[in-house]
Amino acid sequence: MSGHLYILGMGPGDPELVTRKSERILRQTTLYAYFAKKGEVGHARKIADDMLSSHHQELRFEYPITTEIPHQSDEYKQTISLFYDQSAKTIEQYLQKNQDVVLLCEGDPLLYGSAMYILERLQPNYTTHIVPGITAMSGCWSAAQLPIVKYEQTLTVLPATLPLEELIAKLRLCNAAVIMKMGRNLSKVKQALQETGLIDKAIYIERGTQAAEKMMPLTHYTELKAPYFSLILIAGS
Amino acid sequence: MSGHLYILGMGPGDPELVTRKSERILRQTTLYAYFAKKGEVGHARKIADDMLSSHHQELRFEYPITTEIPHQSDEYKQTISLFYDQSAKTIEQYLQKNQDVVLLCEGDPLLYGSAMYILERLQPNYTTHIVPGITAMSGCWSAAQLPIVKYEQTLTVLPATLPLEELIAKLRLCNAAVIMKMGRNLSKVKQALQETGLIDKAIYIERGTQAAEKMMPLTHYTELKAPYFSLILIAGS
Repeated sequence: MSGHLYILGMGPGDPELVTRKSERILRQTTLYAYFAKKGEVGHARKIADDMLSSHHQELRFEYPITTEIPHQSDEYKQTISLFYDQSAKTIEQYLQKNQDVVLLCEGDPLLYGSAMYILERLQPNYTTHIVPGITAMSGCWSAAQLPIVKYEQTLTVLPATLPLEELIAKLRLCNAAVIMKMGRNLSKVKQALQETGLIDKAIYIERGTQAAEKMMPLTHYTELKAPYFSLILIAGS
Repeated sequence: MSGHLYILGMGPGDPELVTRKSERILRQTTLYAYFAKKGEVGHARKIADDMLSSHHQELRFEYPITTEIPHQSDEYKQTISLFYDQSAKTIEQYLQKNQDVVLLCEGDPLLYGSAMYILERLQPNYTTHIVPGITAMSGCWSAAQLPIVKYEQTLTVLPATLPLEELIAKLRLCNAAVIMKMGRNLSKVKQALQETGLIDKAIYIERGTQAAEKMMPLTHYTELKAPYFSLILIAGS
């Protein structure tokens, strides 16, 4: 007899964009876990705020590194892999005591989410459940009231971390596109959109569905860096 | 003074995958509208079932055609465009009487949803709101517990209605892929996946998150046609 692991998508930021299912499971479970950057509350944890009460117990997993080391380096890979090993082991201790654990995830857990590294470590030996969440991109194109794809259009989701040449090659073949993980990649992305003639169609959205939401044509955004919670939308045509 | 139009994403099928926001707005609004095929309850309407009560009034918009006429023909385009004109006009009559209207949509309204054709007709003159929904693809990859994209992988969403040569060309450049709108396009899609060497990675999911959900490797699915609510997932690698 072991506890179950529930991986819950908590959506893009607005606590009302949590599903009834994630809410029910969170309220019924005592122990919840989440990832957070050092010194921050944690995005998924913040979204869950109004669904937590005094019966809840918290497991906080703090990323040992974020942007200090390049993500392609061996040092980063080893450090982050060890961190996921340790986090999974902590969760496992509770599952073994027949206690259910909820892992809170921003957005949708299996679309670029850290939760998948916990899933792959625990799936072989425990009963796992995934509850999908509203993705950041859905939250953003809904806030912008921008139909993203219709008819036979295709949608491509690209991480801004790709090298410039690859971004350009993929954008040339794109119909609708979403570019995620902006941060310090903004000027590279702007250059790629310029070279592919897409820059005038690009909408910049920062903290979509959150109180501090900002939205404008990308050409109006003049900062050199963008926050982590920002993305670019290009509707199909 | 006019009423507001609320376009609500109702998710892929499981009523618990509706967001708290869509639920609240639906419960607070008297008048709800939805699209349905002739002789069917309507997928979005069915999902809403447990949130409707005696104070609600219904506007049902029944598609005049579905698959009888090729979607590329002028006859189809004219018929469907007139249908959206009339549906938008019906909604408009209530908005003009200062009554709010909710439009229920399966999945996420702005990802291949019919609601966008109502939005484009009413957005210029009325206050519109879009609440995102869990997409069919998120529902499916969560049900399959399949991490769809990680790190620097890209995700491409393709409609199965594309011509064979275009499907092959796009699949060759894909990393992770979702193929939607299967129906009678199944054998064409299988051929495209065979030619691109992706067939052994393809997961077939039918009615994801619904009671009648089916899931298997595509190579195990031997029917010649697939139902409308089915899609194929290829995880990134």
